[in-house]
Amino acid sequence: MKRIESNQNSLVKHWKKLSTTRKERDKFAEFLVEGFHLTEEALRKKDLVKSLIVREGVDIPEGWDIEGVAHYSVTAAVAKEISETEHTQGIFAHCAQPEFTEDEQKSWTKLLMIDAVQDPGNIGTMIRTASASGIDAVILGKGCADPYNPKTVRSAQGSHFQIPIVKGELMEWTEQTKASGIPIFGTALQNSTPVHEAKTLEQFALIVGNEGSGVDPVLLQQTDQNLMVPLYGSAESLNVAVATGILLYSLVPKN
Amino acid sequence: MKRIESNQNSLVKHWKKLSTTRKERDKFAEFLVEGFHLTEEALRKKDLVKSLIVREGVDIPEGWDIEGVAHYSVTAAVAKEISETEHTQGIFAHCAQPEFTEDEQKSWTKLLMIDAVQDPGNIGTMIRTASASGIDAVILGKGCADPYNPKTVRSAQGSHFQIPIVKGELMEWTEQTKASGIPIFGTALQNSTPVHEAKTLEQFALIVGNEGSGVDPVLLQQTDQNLMVPLYGSAESLNVAVATGILLYSLVPKN
Repeated sequence: MKRIESNQNSLVKHWKKLSTTRKERDKFAEFLVEGFHLTEEALRKKDLVKSLIVREGVDIPEGWDIEGVAHYSVTAAVAKEISETEHTQGIFAHCAQPEFTEDEQKSWTKLLMIDAVQDPGNIGTMIRTASASGIDAVILGKGCADPYNPKTVRSAQGSHFQIPIVKGELMEWTEQTKASGIPIFGTALQNSTPVHEAKTLEQFALIVGNEGSGVDPVLLQQTDQNLMVPLYGSAESLNVAVATGILLYSLVPKN
Repeated sequence: MKRIESNQNSLVKHWKKLSTTRKERDKFAEFLVEGFHLTEEALRKKDLVKSLIVREGVDIPEGWDIEGVAHYSVTAAVAKEISETEHTQGIFAHCAQPEFTEDEQKSWTKLLMIDAVQDPGNIGTMIRTASASGIDAVILGKGCADPYNPKTVRSAQGSHFQIPIVKGELMEWTEQTKASGIPIFGTALQNSTPVHEAKTLEQFALIVGNEGSGVDPVLLQQTDQNLMVPLYGSAESLNVAVATGILLYSLVPKN
């Protein structure tokens, strides 16, 4: 265990940048998670954990498997410096962003594709919902919030360590998906089927889109069918994460 | 149109307190909404709008019906003082919280009851979802975030002016609902029916609960049946607003 006392320490500067800038996260393909729950979830994928960062006086819970993981003890000032929350629990995991081989990617047959959803909290909730509903992977297209933004990580509640997340080009993904014979569902308010008329499927890709403008019309040309969640009352629209939950739970097999 | 230049003006102090403290909102049964979209929605329920507050230089869109509404022009400093957002659009509506007569309350036969959901954003998203799915009213029990918190109002996207929201005692509401012969569904992970096995109903009350601990067991004793959203993947739980969306869209008639 090493001890770090200064906010000027180069590792502290790196951790802080990981929690505050997408540039640093993209450059190093790393991210920082914070709090007991997320750190515990991270340790379940121990090969992703580069180091454990613990404020002095904070006890690591018994039963956590931290063997072989680099371990830093930091002062309260350092913990505050790298934290994104108002009252930090003083425990962090410095993680690598998971990567997936081509073979792994080809094995996914239930996909959630997200087009230009900008709110980090929405992205996190959608990742959590995809993981809960048994989806194989989440593909984030251009214009989406960074999945490793601390707000996204927080709202996903640990799902980053459970379900593959890939940043990609949705046109390429839809072409590959089509070539594999997997049906693609878009979401649109016009010329679309009410979600309760959709059938459950063992294999599918669902594309959901931007909070304001929906799925890019160019992507909608790639779909086999477009679905919509009907609005029975007065609200003009649903939150995109809520709509995604309704859509995914209609499509996945009930077992 | 009156002009207000000073943050020390008593109205400015009242507006600021409405946007920052639940105490002020509860005491006066008022709230403040901010931005073009929400102000426009507020004006559709003009009897609730006590005044329109507009920063100098901001134009009221053509077509808005503001006849008879008190109208204040304020400086940029005043607009900033009363705003809850980083970059205010400089337009606000000072509103009364709607109230509902006993007869109106008795006419509601599709209810969403929320028990101790603490996150303002979740409450707002649930109000929006209830409005979209055709629910008659939302009943907020003890321990819930204030429905008139600015974060709640923002995430509800105008639904405050579309669907009745009542703060109440859920034990009383469930007793009245039972006495009216309306079936009550709770939500629970144990001893509960998967949501896809539930039937659609013209009349029902759904109770959803706290993010961590779920619905109070005392309330669950009042229910006719408890439902759950199955977890098919790795995530341990769903966001409460997403789960509520899946539940409501399973229960409401598809027309």
